[in-house]
Amino acid sequence: MDTMSSQGGIRPNFLGDWPKIDSTAFVDPSAQILGNVHIGADVYVGPLTVIRADEPGPDGKVHPVIIEDGSYVQDGVIVHAREGTSVRIGSSTNLAHGVIIHGPCTIGQGCFLALRATVYNSILEEAVWVGIGAIIMRATVPSHTMIPAGTVIRSKYDVRYYRLTTAKEMEYQKDVFRASAALRDGYKKFFSARSK
Amino acid sequence: MDTMSSQGGIRPNFLGDWPKIDSTAFVDPSAQILGNVHIGADVYVGPLTVIRADEPGPDGKVHPVIIEDGSYVQDGVIVHAREGTSVRIGSSTNLAHGVIIHGPCTIGQGCFLALRATVYNSILEEAVWVGIGAIIMRATVPSHTMIPAGTVIRSKYDVRYYRLTTAKEMEYQKDVFRASAALRDGYKKFFSARSK
Amino acid sequence: MDTMSSQGGIRPNFLGDWPKIDSTAFVDPSAQILGNVHIGADVYVGPLTVIRADEPGPDGKVHPVIIEDGSYVQDGVIVHAREGTSVRIGSSTNLAHGVIIHGPCTIGQGCFLALRATVYNSILEEAVWVGIGAIIMRATVPSHTMIPAGTVIRSKYDVRYYRLTTAKEMEYQKDVFRASAALRDGYKKFFSARSK
Repeated sequence: MDTMSSQGGIRPNFLGDWPKIDSTAFVDPSAQILGNVHIGADVYVGPLTVIRADEPGPDGKVHPVIIEDGSYVQDGVIVHAREGTSVRIGSSTNLAHGVIIHGPCTIGQGCFLALRATVYNSILEEAVWVGIGAIIMRATVPSHTMIPAGTVIRSKYDVRYYRLTTAKEMEYQKDVFRASAALRDGYKKFFSARSK
Repeated sequence: MDTMSSQGGIRPNFLGDWPKIDSTAFVDPSAQILGNVHIGADVYVGPLTVIRADEPGPDGKVHPVIIEDGSYVQDGVIVHAREGTSVRIGSSTNLAHGVIIHGPCTIGQGCFLALRATVYNSILEEAVWVGIGAIIMRATVPSHTMIPAGTVIRSKYDVRYYRLTTAKEMEYQKDVFRASAALRDGYKKFFSARSK
Repeated sequence: MDTMSSQGGIRPNFLGDWPKIDSTAFVDPSAQILGNVHIGADVYVGPLTVIRADEPGPDGKVHPVIIEDGSYVQDGVIVHAREGTSVRIGSSTNLAHGVIIHGPCTIGQGCFLALRATVYNSILEEAVWVGIGAIIMRATVPSHTMIPAGTVIRSKYDVRYYRLTTAKEMEYQKDVFRASAALRDGYKKFFSARSK
């Protein structure tokens, strides 16, 4: 295993698909990025995360896990997809510490998933807020919905009567994004200076 | 720490017990396997997992953490045991991403623990299904029980009235197992080819 | 990234703040300790943890994450703080496997956070017990309170009517502390012997 580990956590899956990572993204050296993963511009990927695309479908190909421009993937996040399915994380979306996303999943742009939220086989439209520790399975959540901390959504029938996000919550989200952008830029500069 | 870290994540506990890993198992290079851990044939152990057996009992010995043949330990899983206790994961059992098992625990064969399930000081008999984010403490769960996502079982008195798994759920489980077996075989072949 | 990864997981944040770790503490080689983190005497930090202090406040400075003497940080724990805020974990406190603490937070001495508890923007006074998977947000929890497994506290109005910890629970906690101290001492001795 020496050959692999010397390349760090960015590595191919067993079919030989390598991650494609935009040069403006920052990936922490302890992150594990495996296989057909596409990471867009200005993305931040924190410590001890796993983003893994390696289960081929019936056609023998692995569908991609895509993290679009300007999204944040905080410490301990895990993103994976079932065979023949994909995950798309829209732009400017935040996956807080300990979030798990298991495909098939589509997360729209501007979503905010708080600490340890879990999403499986679901669609979140735009600017959805998922509270701490909430679980969402087999459902489509409309844009701007606020799912409170600890909520368990087991099917599409459970998505109802949730309120929209407030101006205060949007303000908080903006603060988190600004701070995360500063981290991304700071670490990129820091690592770049050290490697010279 | 150089000596240790150069050996990767498979390492002894402080009493000098080394993991015993069957040559047909696949262990991701970022997994941390410490101490008196026994990993059987055809087991898959994913990225950033911890399987740790290092707390000696009154007799000064560390009881084993055993992962039996053909089981799957997905990304971010943590398995540990209290002093003088052990964990046994039966054959053909799946621990999905982010599961925590804390011994003393016995998990029977053919169980399916979904994303982020937590089991502490409990017995799961055979083919038990534990839904996403469910918590099971100090209980014995009968064979073929289906514990829904987000359930909290705080003691043996909470284990009642749960339905059995359906044929559809068993079919899904079979799909996951087939996909995980393909990963295990694919990665074993891939790493073996690279190390030549 | 070669320069960084060769130094292991104990590393500066992008502003150049290095962790300060007491020589009597034990930090597992796979732990990621970043930035303005202070780790006191006799602390144990387990595998694949992240303790990270790197978001500067308006004054350009990163406030510290402090783990006081004799505390235990088990596998997979994540501790982080929002910009310009800090986290203080009091002495002789246990953060069990998979706990997340997100600052601003103050955790008093002698607290016991069980598996996968999540605390955000809160104060726990002394000897608080937080059960498995419980979530505490924006609240102050009085000393000796016992928050049961799976509880969701979304604001200060949810903290009421919880009972105090029992003598049996305190006894259990003492057992866990004794076992964790043995691990810390054992690993310190073990690594020190190997590095000679």
